[in-house]
Amino acid sequence: MSKYWSEVTRSIEPYVCGEQPKDKKYVKLNTNENPYPPSPKVLEAIKNAANGDLRLYPDPNCDKLSETIAEYYDLDRKQIFIGNGSDEVLALSFLTFFNPGETIIFPDISYSFYPVYADLYKINYKLAKLKENFSIFVDDFLTENGGVVIPNPNAPTGRCLDVASIKKILDYNSNKVVIIDEAYIDFGGVSVVNLIKEYPNLLVIQTLSKSRSLAGIRVGFALGQEELIDGLNRIKNSFNSYTIDRVAAIAAVEAIKDEEYFRECASKIIKTREEVVEKLTLLDFNVIPSKANFIFTAHSTYPASELFTRLREKGVLVRYFNKNRINNYLRITIGSDEEMNYFIEKVKEIIND
Amino acid sequence: MSKYWSEVTRSIEPYVCGEQPKDKKYVKLNTNENPYPPSPKVLEAIKNAANGDLRLYPDPNCDKLSETIAEYYDLDRKQIFIGNGSDEVLALSFLTFFNPGETIIFPDISYSFYPVYADLYKINYKLAKLKENFSIFVDDFLTENGGVVIPNPNAPTGRCLDVASIKKILDYNSNKVVIIDEAYIDFGGVSVVNLIKEYPNLLVIQTLSKSRSLAGIRVGFALGQEELIDGLNRIKNSFNSYTIDRVAAIAAVEAIKDEEYFRECASKIIKTREEVVEKLTLLDFNVIPSKANFIFTAHSTYPASELFTRLREKGVLVRYFNKNRINNYLRITIGSDEEMNYFIEKVKEIIND
Repeated sequence: MSKYWSEVTRSIEPYVCGEQPKDKKYVKLNTNENPYPPSPKVLEAIKNAANGDLRLYPDPNCDKLSETIAEYYDLDRKQIFIGNGSDEVLALSFLTFFNPGETIIFPDISYSFYPVYADLYKINYKLAKLKENFSIFVDDFLTENGGVVIPNPNAPTGRCLDVASIKKILDYNSNKVVIIDEAYIDFGGVSVVNLIKEYPNLLVIQTLSKSRSLAGIRVGFALGQEELIDGLNRIKNSFNSYTIDRVAAIAAVEAIKDEEYFRECASKIIKTREEVVEKLTLLDFNVIPSKANFIFTAHSTYPASELFTRLREKGVLVRYFNKNRINNYLRITIGSDEEMNYFIEKVKEIIND
Repeated sequence: MSKYWSEVTRSIEPYVCGEQPKDKKYVKLNTNENPYPPSPKVLEAIKNAANGDLRLYPDPNCDKLSETIAEYYDLDRKQIFIGNGSDEVLALSFLTFFNPGETIIFPDISYSFYPVYADLYKINYKLAKLKENFSIFVDDFLTENGGVVIPNPNAPTGRCLDVASIKKILDYNSNKVVIIDEAYIDFGGVSVVNLIKEYPNLLVIQTLSKSRSLAGIRVGFALGQEELIDGLNRIKNSFNSYTIDRVAAIAAVEAIKDEEYFRECASKIIKTREEVVEKLTLLDFNVIPSKANFIFTAHSTYPASELFTRLREKGVLVRYFNKNRINNYLRITIGSDEEMNYFIEKVKEIIND
């Protein structure tokens, strides 16, 4: 604790991201990265962007990228906000739409960055307790609040909420912003992007980190009616005018445009996921039904914390959260078939040891 | 104004950055970009970074880049904080070190983003009025305050503050953080980086946007004792874990390492600047002594606002601030010799018209 720190610096408990190990090569199933490389068109575009123009500032409004995303989703260019990864988009959204002192709601088991953003900006929050099977009690979100955040599919559970339930939440909270964090939507979930025209209070947040294999390039975006996007731009332009660099913007455009490649990778991951679920079920794991590029699972007898440690020793990294209600679960990213076969093999070794 | 906006979104007046025109090709002397391309080694490194690893998250701590900067400045790796451009580093610094309700001090004529950051976080500020010649009254900073921010060289004036004066300010404010924003330090100013070991309250902020010709890649950094850097990391990790993408980090490492190329470009700009100052002086301009890659100047009779407009018509963009005390000045970025000759020629045409 330093005397130079502000009050919020002293009190905040920062987010801890999944390990990025440097000690050795792991089968890395701990940060929900895509096992497949970005589209070859993306890599080609980055090479072409390595030129003298990098001496110039980027377009602060990311017009070309916004237009590309707008076209992809059949929205208006003014309904798109771009940020330096969906984490930044979320952080700016909390500040743009939620007031200090008011109480927002999100699930008790969800992305563990949400409470950190809330604390950073002195926004109160209420945790909506998920059911035993980790599904959402819709009624919990039908109470007075200062805003709602729901990841769909939820992380780390992988569970999806149906569109009808989301509509119910949007209808009830018509005077408050409802953020649907669709970071993992492309692996089998149903997006609510097409509800945007109906609901001025709906903000959908997505990312290129997962389904577009671009975690290394940091581009996320928010979709919503123009007044919400205007608000985000006001806050962004009071924080950092140029959040997206020239190379990232160019890479992102190509990633969105190469829909065929993206669909192919996402389909492969979904297929692998279903095979892994089947194999784990046969090994006495309970797997929460997942529409994400990860699964959340507990073995009937083998403690998750031990399984986590032993997998690590065997060169497989998965994610373990030592938190109430989920401390017997592991979150396992879906890698390539080869990686997942290796993972299953190691799991068998450990539980049969 | 939307009912969905938070109180701060409603009240904030966002920063407006220099125009990035798309209508036609200009001689662009309005955003202090470097006229020379980035080092060829930077461009080569970016090309090599366009590979499958972009599917993976970057190193959230930017270890390699921090080590490279530490080595360059003979500091410890733990004395380096990296951000998505120095604007982000500044924004995070305001939140990390300054408290809402307390009053920080910065010059009345300085980087116009400072009051925006302060407003964003509800930090009060007092403007230290520069002298008529735009130099700083040191005594203004020797009063009780919640922190100090001084750009050195100052922007948009280009004036440098001497090291002895900065030491006086650091000594007086030993319990508060003093931020020296050295965005433009490499064009002839004297950095206070070597005061860091003596002053636990000193935070120096620099950028790769100007002297390293990398405005398009968004990398800035802060240098200070470990407890200040720890504080910045606490806030960064409560906002966005991965602010620097893989490509930017790799490009930045090469930019710092290619010191010879950087020195050569900076020297050329300084030489051009001095020639431009001489020519403008002969044309009856008052030019504030500059240690930056821009100059701040007023003509003895020709109004700056008109000169700005007429230069624009002739394809030359410079920066005009329609603000009290400086609304008869233009800020002109130092471009290549060719660009500056064109600029001088157009100025002559206009004032002799």
